[in-house]
Amino acid sequence: MEKQTVDPWKWGEHTNSVQAVEVKQVAGTLYCSGQVAIDANGQPSTADMRSQLLQTFQNLEQLIGEAGYECSGIVRLNVYTTSVTEFFTTCTDVYQAWIASHGVKQATTLLEVQGLFAGLTVELEATVVK
Amino acid sequence: MEKQTVDPWKWGEHTNSVQAVEVKQVAGTLYCSGQVAIDANGQPSTADMRSQLLQTFQNLEQLIGEAGYECSGIVRLNVYTTSVTEFFTTCTDVYQAWIASHGVKQATTLLEVQGLFAGLTVELEATVVK
Amino acid sequence: MEKQTVDPWKWGEHTNSVQAVEVKQVAGTLYCSGQVAIDANGQPSTADMRSQLLQTFQNLEQLIGEAGYECSGIVRLNVYTTSVTEFFTTCTDVYQAWIASHGVKQATTLLEVQGLFAGLTVELEATVVK
Repeated sequence: MEKQTVDPWKWGEHTNSVQAVEVKQVAGTLYCSGQVAIDANGQPSTADMRSQLLQTFQNLEQLIGEAGYECSGIVRLNVYTTSVTEFFTTCTDVYQAWIASHGVKQATTLLEVQGLFAGLTVELEATVVK
Repeated sequence: MEKQTVDPWKWGEHTNSVQAVEVKQVAGTLYCSGQVAIDANGQPSTADMRSQLLQTFQNLEQLIGEAGYECSGIVRLNVYTTSVTEFFTTCTDVYQAWIASHGVKQATTLLEVQGLFAGLTVELEATVVK
Repeated sequence: MEKQTVDPWKWGEHTNSVQAVEVKQVAGTLYCSGQVAIDANGQPSTADMRSQLLQTFQNLEQLIGEAGYECSGIVRLNVYTTSVTEFFTTCTDVYQAWIASHGVKQATTLLEVQGLFAGLTVELEATVVK
C-alpha cells in the first residue's frame, strides 16, 4: 500500500490528524465497528471519559492487531463524544499520546452526539488499510 | 472479493454486527446515501421508529439490488437514530431479523443524533462491496 | 476509475445527491478529515451557517485540489450540522450551486448533531476517488 498525507494549512501541524490521507494499491481494507469502553465480558464502563478513551484505545488496538493490521494503517478515525468540551479538557493528552505512539496519520471527524450505546461517552470508528 | 470477519470478544457473538470486516480483491464498492423511510413519491414517513426501520430496510434492499449488489456484501452499516433507547426497545427484533435473513456480517456504529431529515427517527448508512 | 450512479426513485432527481455511487478500478482513495470554516491561520469562523458553508467549500476544494484529486471524484459527502432547519433554510442554494458547478454525483448522509469543533455549525466529510 502507498500512503500519502495532505495538509494544506500550517495550523494542521498542531492537530492530531491530517487533513487528508491518500492510499493507493491497497491490499486489504478493514472496516471496524465503533469501539467503546466495553470489557472482555461485555460490560460497558461507567468510568469518566478519559478512562473510557484509554480502554477504547486498548480495544481498538486488540481488534486491529487480531485482524492482522497495524494502527499506523488507520486512514479514517472518527471520534464521537457526548461532550466536545469534556473531550478536549480531559482527553487530549491521551489522544495525542496514542496517535503519536503508533505514528498514525489519519483523517478525523469529531462530532458531539446526543448519546452512544449504554450511556458511554466516547466512541472511535476506524477504517484501516494495508 | 474475499471477506473475513474479526470478533475478538465472546460478547460479540450476541450482537448483530461484527467488530471488524476485512475485504480484499474488491471488484466494486457501492457508497449509499443514508436511507430513511421515504416512499416512492418522496413522502417522508410519520410512523413510529419500528415502522420507519422496516420501510428503510425495504428501501435499502431495493437500492442495493438495483445497483447489482447483495445485502450480504455490506461491510459498514451505520445506524443513526434520534433515540437509542427507543431503537433498542422497539426495533431490535426487526433489525436482528433483517441482518440474519441476509447473512450480513458488517461493522456497525450506532449514534443517537439530535435530528435527521424531515423529522425522521432512524437512518441507515451502508457501504457495500462485491 | 469507473463510476456509476444509482437512483431508484424519481424524487431522487430533485435532490443534490444520488442514492448510491458505485466505483470500480479505483486508482486512489482520498479520505478527508471533516472540513469546517477555519481560515488559513487556524481561526474558526463565528459567522452564520451560510457563510461557514461557503468557507468550508473553499477549504474542501483547496484540500482536494492539493491532493491531486477532483471534486467530481467525491463519492461520499456527509453533512453534519447543528441545525437541519437552518441548513435547509439558509444554505440550500449555496449547497446546490457548489454540487452543480463541480458536477458532483455523491452519496450523502445529513445529520443534525449536538455540537462540532469550536462552536462551528456545519461540517463536510468527503471521501474522494480517482
